[in-house]
Order: sequence, then C-alpha cells, then structure tokens
Amino acid sequence: MKTLQHYQDKIQKTLEEINLSGTPETLYEPIIYTMASGGKRLRPVLTLMACDIFDGNINNALYPAIAVEIFHNFTLIHDDIMDDASIRRGKPTVYKKWNANVGILSGDAMMIKAYEILNKAKPADFTEIFPIFNDMALKVCEGQQYDMDYETRQIISLSEYIQMIKLKTATLIGGALEIGAAIAHANTENRHHLTEFGKNIGLAFQLQDDFLDAYADELVFGKQIGKDIICGKKTFMLIKALETADNDTKNNILNTIENKAIKDAEKINTILEIYNRLDLRKAAQSQINTYYKNGIYFLDRINVPEHKKLLLKSFIQNLMVRNK
Amino acid sequence: MKTLQHYQDKIQKTLEEINLSGTPETLYEPIIYTMASGGKRLRPVLTLMACDIFDGNINNALYPAIAVEIFHNFTLIHDDIMDDASIRRGKPTVYKKWNANVGILSGDAMMIKAYEILNKAKPADFTEIFPIFNDMALKVCEGQQYDMDYETRQIISLSEYIQMIKLKTATLIGGALEIGAAIAHANTENRHHLTEFGKNIGLAFQLQDDFLDAYADELVFGKQIGKDIICGKKTFMLIKALETADNDTKNNILNTIENKAIKDAEKINTILEIYNRLDLRKAAQSQINTYYKNGIYFLDRINVPEHKKLLLKSFIQNLMVRNK
Repeated sequence: MKTLQHYQDKIQKTLEEINLSGTPETLYEPIIYTMASGGKRLRPVLTLMACDIFDGNINNALYPAIAVEIFHNFTLIHDDIMDDASIRRGKPTVYKKWNANVGILSGDAMMIKAYEILNKAKPADFTEIFPIFNDMALKVCEGQQYDMDYETRQIISLSEYIQMIKLKTATLIGGALEIGAAIAHANTENRHHLTEFGKNIGLAFQLQDDFLDAYADELVFGKQIGKDIICGKKTFMLIKALETADNDTKNNILNTIENKAIKDAEKINTILEIYNRLDLRKAAQSQINTYYKNGIYFLDRINVPEHKKLLLKSFIQNLMVRNK
Repeated sequence: MKTLQHYQDKIQKTLEEINLSGTPETLYEPIIYTMASGGKRLRPVLTLMACDIFDGNINNALYPAIAVEIFHNFTLIHDDIMDDASIRRGKPTVYKKWNANVGILSGDAMMIKAYEILNKAKPADFTEIFPIFNDMALKVCEGQQYDMDYETRQIISLSEYIQMIKLKTATLIGGALEIGAAIAHANTENRHHLTEFGKNIGLAFQLQDDFLDAYADELVFGKQIGKDIICGKKTFMLIKALETADNDTKNNILNTIENKAIKDAEKINTILEIYNRLDLRKAAQSQINTYYKNGIYFLDRINVPEHKKLLLKSFIQNLMVRNK
C-alpha cells in the first residue's frame, strides 16, 4: 500500500516543477510566498487518493490536484483581507506583508493560474472536471459571503451555520475528491458516494476546529485556545450555546462577547463555563461524530475492494483524532 | 450588411437570458448591478464581428462574448477598489455603494461566472478558446499590477507605459477578437492579423483617452477635462511631457502635479500650457495615428473579401473620431 508521504512527495515535486514566477515580480512574489508557506496539502492529497482508489493514473490527477490547492490558497489570501487577519500558518498574511491591493490582485492572478494549471490536464479530463471545479469555486464564494453576512447578525440558526460551512469548507473537500474520481473514470454512483463522504468529513473537520478552540489541549493543539471566543466568532459552539441557553444565560453570553471592557482571559473563562454548564463538549462531539459516521457510511458504500480505501480512511481518522 | 445594432441587440438579449442571480443575494446583487450599468459592450461586439468576418456562426460566439464582457466588468470592480474610485459610468462603484469586502468577493464570483459562461460554448470551441481567454485574463492582471507599481514612481519611460497599457487594455481587445476568429475556425495567419489589429487599436484607444483628458471639447466629451492632470495620473501626455521637457519645465511639471496647495483649475492651466508649449497635441495625435494605422495595416492583411471587414472598420473609425 502507498503511504501518505508518497502522495505528499508527488504534490511537492509537481509544485516545484510548476513555474509560478513571472513579471511584474510584485504580482507573482506574493503567489510564490503563499504557495511556499505550505499547509497540510490536504485537498490535493485527497484528489490523488481518490484517483488511486479507482485505479486511475495519478499522474493525470497531479495538475488538477495542484489547481485545487492553488485555488484554495487564493481564497485564503482574499479571506484574510476581508477578515483583517494578520497571521496565517505562522507567517504574516499577504495583506499584512504587502497591502490590500497586492492581496486583491495577486489573489486574482492566482485564481487565473489555478485555471491555467487545471488546463494542463488531459483534454478529455479537463472537459470533465472543469464544471466540477468551477461549481466548487462559486460555492466557496457563496459560503464566504454568508460568513460575512452572518458577522453583522447577532443570532444565526444552527442550520444556517451548517449551510454556510457546507458551501465554504465542505464543498472543496468533496470537490477535491470528486475531481480525482472523475479522472479515474469512476462510475456515477461511486463518484457520488465519494463526494458525499468528502462533504460530511469536511463538515466534521470544521466543527472539530470550532470545538478545539474551546476544548483543545493547548500544548498539543499548538495554538492558543479561545481565539474564536475573543473575536465573538459565530462558531458551532457559540451558536449552539445561544440556541440551548435560557434567556438569562443567552444575555450573559451576548454581553460577554460584545463587551469590549472585559479582558480576553475573563471572556474565555465566562464563556467556557457556560459551555460546560450547557454540556456543549458532548453536544459538539456528538455532532462531529454524526458527520464523521455519515462520511464513513458513504465511504463504505463505494464499490471497490476494501483495501483500496484503507489509506484514505486512516488518513481521515488521523485528522479527526488530532489534538483531542 | 449587418449593423452594429444587430450585434448589440444579440448581446443584450443573451445577457438578459443569462441568469446572474443567486443566493446569497448580497453576493449576486452587485454582479447584476455592474452588468446592468451597461457601457459600450465594445469587447463582446468585437467577438461577434470577428466571428462573422470569417463566416462563423455568431450564435456559437455569444456565450464567449458575454464571458469576455463579464470578465472585463469583474476587473473594473476590483480596479475601482484598488484605485479608490467612487463613480463608474455615472453610478457609484460597487466598492462605494457597498464596501471593499463586497467588491472583492462579488468580483471573485463574477470571474468564476465568466468561466462558467465560457464553458457554455460548444465543447470543441471551449477547448480552443479557453487558453486564449485565460492568457488574456492573466495579462490584464499583470498590466494592472504595473499600473499600480508605476503610481509610486515619479518617472516612467514611455516604453514602460506602452508595455503596461498593452497588457492592461490592448490584450483584452485583441483577445476578444481572437476568440471570435477561433470560433469561426479562421486560419492561423488571419487570426494573427486580426489579433494584432485589435492590440494596436486598443493602444490607440487608450492613448486617445489620455489625449482627450487634455484636449477634448468638454461639451462633446461629456466629462470634465483635466481629471488625469488633477490626479497626477501617469498618462501618455504627462510621460511624454516629462520626457521632452527641459529640466526647469520638468521640475515645474512635477511641482505643479505634486503640490496639493495649488487649486485644480490652476493645475490644469499650468500643465496644459506646458503641453501646448511642448506641442504635445501633435505628438499625441501622431502616436495615436501610428497605432491606428498599424491596426489598419493588419486588418488589410486579413485574407477575406473587403466587404466583410467594412462594418468592423467603420465601427473602429467611429470610435476613433469621437469627441475630437
């Protein structure tokens, strides 16, 4: 059986082969900077694994996998401007290192580069995967817009939130897998099951991120907990708390989140205490588990020998148990 | 012979048929707003005319033409943020009507929509025109980046400026024509000539814009003259003035442009007087004429019966004589 490292190496090698430089350097330097900052390369690994599961030639999936990764990184550049974020993967965001205009335009160029690299796929594959890629790209924008819209609303329902992260996060995981499966000419049913697996796992990932902000072991997690609480970010935790709390607690939550006079540490303490009181640890884990199990349900439905799915399954399992 | 109106009507009808609405409305409303604000539809008209010249079926060129127009309008949304522009086509820019974040994200979605609509072309056409479209899109970004880079430099050479507007403006005119010719299966030589025609005409258009800011008849021009002078925009006029002036005059120009204490009307008067003294009216008209004639040279080289080119020729001629 291949290893995760095998896929990651392939992606790294292809990324190094692709020339992302150009003139003016002021346009291309931020693109190179962003792509060099790494990240887990989760999405392109999924594209390759999906292709492999159906006995496709993963060399045909390399450029599409990279296109997905470049697209993902483009969205991060623009999102960081919109969210006024300073740090990404431990380094200054493009927006902070240069400025908003550089971020906007390098992002645009990066998106066009993603399409250029997608077009390096075999012509028949390109025709097949282009609509998947494009549809996915548009959904990610829709999700980001909902996310921004929700920032200015005090109360968001849980179903609205799930719909938003479905578009913003889960679509890209599902799409990355679907593209790999399409290149391997998987049948419609198998493609559907793999895509649904990806979407459910994507939701589980996002909810886990939300959960870890409140309940991670800081030493293992590698980042400060409570950042979402400090920002008043409408995560699963906060939305669920507002949905389940009595009126007094609800007001307490809103006052704590919105009151700028309260110090960060105190804010985190107060909110975490409420989360504990509402038993949100259990509620979140149960919800994460539901999506995870849904995902595995769809993975199990894929009609290929079980050993073909093992690496993907263990890869996802490892991501799910991180930092708990 | 068909009329310009014929092409414009086709484009308008197709634009009305295409559904640009979606949810969240906050994402799609600015797209609809931008596309409804019209403009001359110059680029899609050129795509259709190019297709027609080579006896192509212009119905096959409609979606690609619209994709070019949507892409062009996307660049305007992002450019307006970067340039801090308030008004476009007599209406508030997306950035001013909503905010920068809405402009960034709606622009992104609009670009993806352009690709979606390009993909409505016949599959064989799509494969053929996709690289032209993508290459053009990237060049426009490169041009915009040079434009931004030049803002912070006091002296730009004329050749740097021409290279910039070639990328930012002329590429899109050339590309719009090339796409139409490709759909009509024009041969390589004819395609090349038409594209070169477009690029040269694009340069002539941009230089004419620069010229009209200084020398237009305001009543005919329909907008205030001297706006570029007030902004200190590095147009052909300013660059040529700085290149040809003696040192004293050069310093006078730079001081006038950069001194915020000088009133707008006085700024315009001083600079126009220098332009007159340097005989820039003649220099600009000569340069515009050179590009225009280069364009016509390439149009003449296209190997189709002359009557086929008549409408395109008169369309371009009309655009060139406007407001002089």
